[in-house]
Amino acid sequence: TLLEGVLACLTPKLLAGRKILITAGATIEMLDPIRGITNQSSGKMGFSLAAMATRMGAEVTLVYGQTTTSLPPVQHAVHAPSAESMYLAVMQQVAHQEIFIAVAAVADYSPKQTSSQKIKKSEPTLTIELKRNRDILAEVASLPNPPYCVGFAAETEQVIAYASQKRIAKNIPMIIANHAVSAIGNDENTVTIIDDSGHTTLPQSNKIEIAHQILTYLSQQLNTSA
Amino acid sequence: TLLEGVLACLTPKLLAGRKILITAGATIEMLDPIRGITNQSSGKMGFSLAAMATRMGAEVTLVYGQTTTSLPPVQHAVHAPSAESMYLAVMQQVAHQEIFIAVAAVADYSPKQTSSQKIKKSEPTLTIELKRNRDILAEVASLPNPPYCVGFAAETEQVIAYASQKRIAKNIPMIIANHAVSAIGNDENTVTIIDDSGHTTLPQSNKIEIAHQILTYLSQQLNTSA
Repeated sequence: TLLEGVLACLTPKLLAGRKILITAGATIEMLDPIRGITNQSSGKMGFSLAAMATRMGAEVTLVYGQTTTSLPPVQHAVHAPSAESMYLAVMQQVAHQEIFIAVAAVADYSPKQTSSQKIKKSEPTLTIELKRNRDILAEVASLPNPPYCVGFAAETEQVIAYASQKRIAKNIPMIIANHAVSAIGNDENTVTIIDDSGHTTLPQSNKIEIAHQILTYLSQQLNTSA
Repeated sequence: TLLEGVLACLTPKLLAGRKILITAGATIEMLDPIRGITNQSSGKMGFSLAAMATRMGAEVTLVYGQTTTSLPPVQHAVHAPSAESMYLAVMQQVAHQEIFIAVAAVADYSPKQTSSQKIKKSEPTLTIELKRNRDILAEVASLPNPPYCVGFAAETEQVIAYASQKRIAKNIPMIIANHAVSAIGNDENTVTIIDDSGHTTLPQSNKIEIAHQILTYLSQQLNTSA
């Protein structure tokens, strides 16, 4: 669009030529053709990062699940509705990427069995057996020459502590912590950037401004370490 | 909007003064503050019925869950995200309604327990215990002076047979059958109206036109029986 063009012109090209892979949105793990387990991610934070990275000159590949907002203008977009399809899409796209930002709320578990037909409600109770899904971010981080990996941790309690643990467990250089309940679906967000240098809480702002600040911080880290 | 005003002017007032309660969208049954079991209803069919009934002169009360489209212009709208909240909202609104059209894809089961904090992924497998939810449509139909009840049956196989069974089981005069996989999320739909007189398959069309045909058929039934 014209507006996007003007905004891109006005934005310093701090990520010029950088190849960035971003995941966004929620996955849904189907129980049958109609029902599934999902989460309430709107995709706004991931889409804001993808739009802003593009404005800042990056070549963005966006792998996205269920979202409630329209797709931002990026160079490459791949739809991946389930955890398994998102894993495959990321692994297919990850070669030659310099940065990987995993924002998507990927289901941790999926049903052991998916019914090919709608499950009939005959029983008063029902038990669903779930199996653990692969951890996309941890697997990307353990590749031989991994991109610079940035995770997102949406927590409901002990936000900074859990996010810090997650950063170490996944062996990634940077994680963005936020408070799940206030952030999900909202246009505004408060986040804390956690890396080797400690943690930096950004002032509350809308998600596109948060994206700008995260990517500016990230570009500084990459230029320092290069 | 102006367009809606013009469309309303051009639409015959076949439902003038009728009070109609419509449910639309999907419910989500939370496992924890972030994750839940839902289904892929977009809310388009229910919203189309609500918009068209309003244009046709009805006083519409819309009880809606998760949707991917914007709320149509109706006189009363109540948000009800879960099966339980939708049950309560419908029971609160149902008095004095002449017609009840249950389009929402209400979850048949919900978790026995909802965690107040995000569940941590520590285990390789997980078992979720579900309990059967109340059947909103069947309960409305069994009220002492029920409104004229219309159900929707989204099926993946034996569509007409399952929908006919559902009409009898719920003791409702009319059910609209559709093929779930092709209908969900699409703007177009093919439906079959099933009532005491047999079944009538409408030509494939967009959901607003389908809504118009269903409501025209319904108004004829009500005028005949009155």
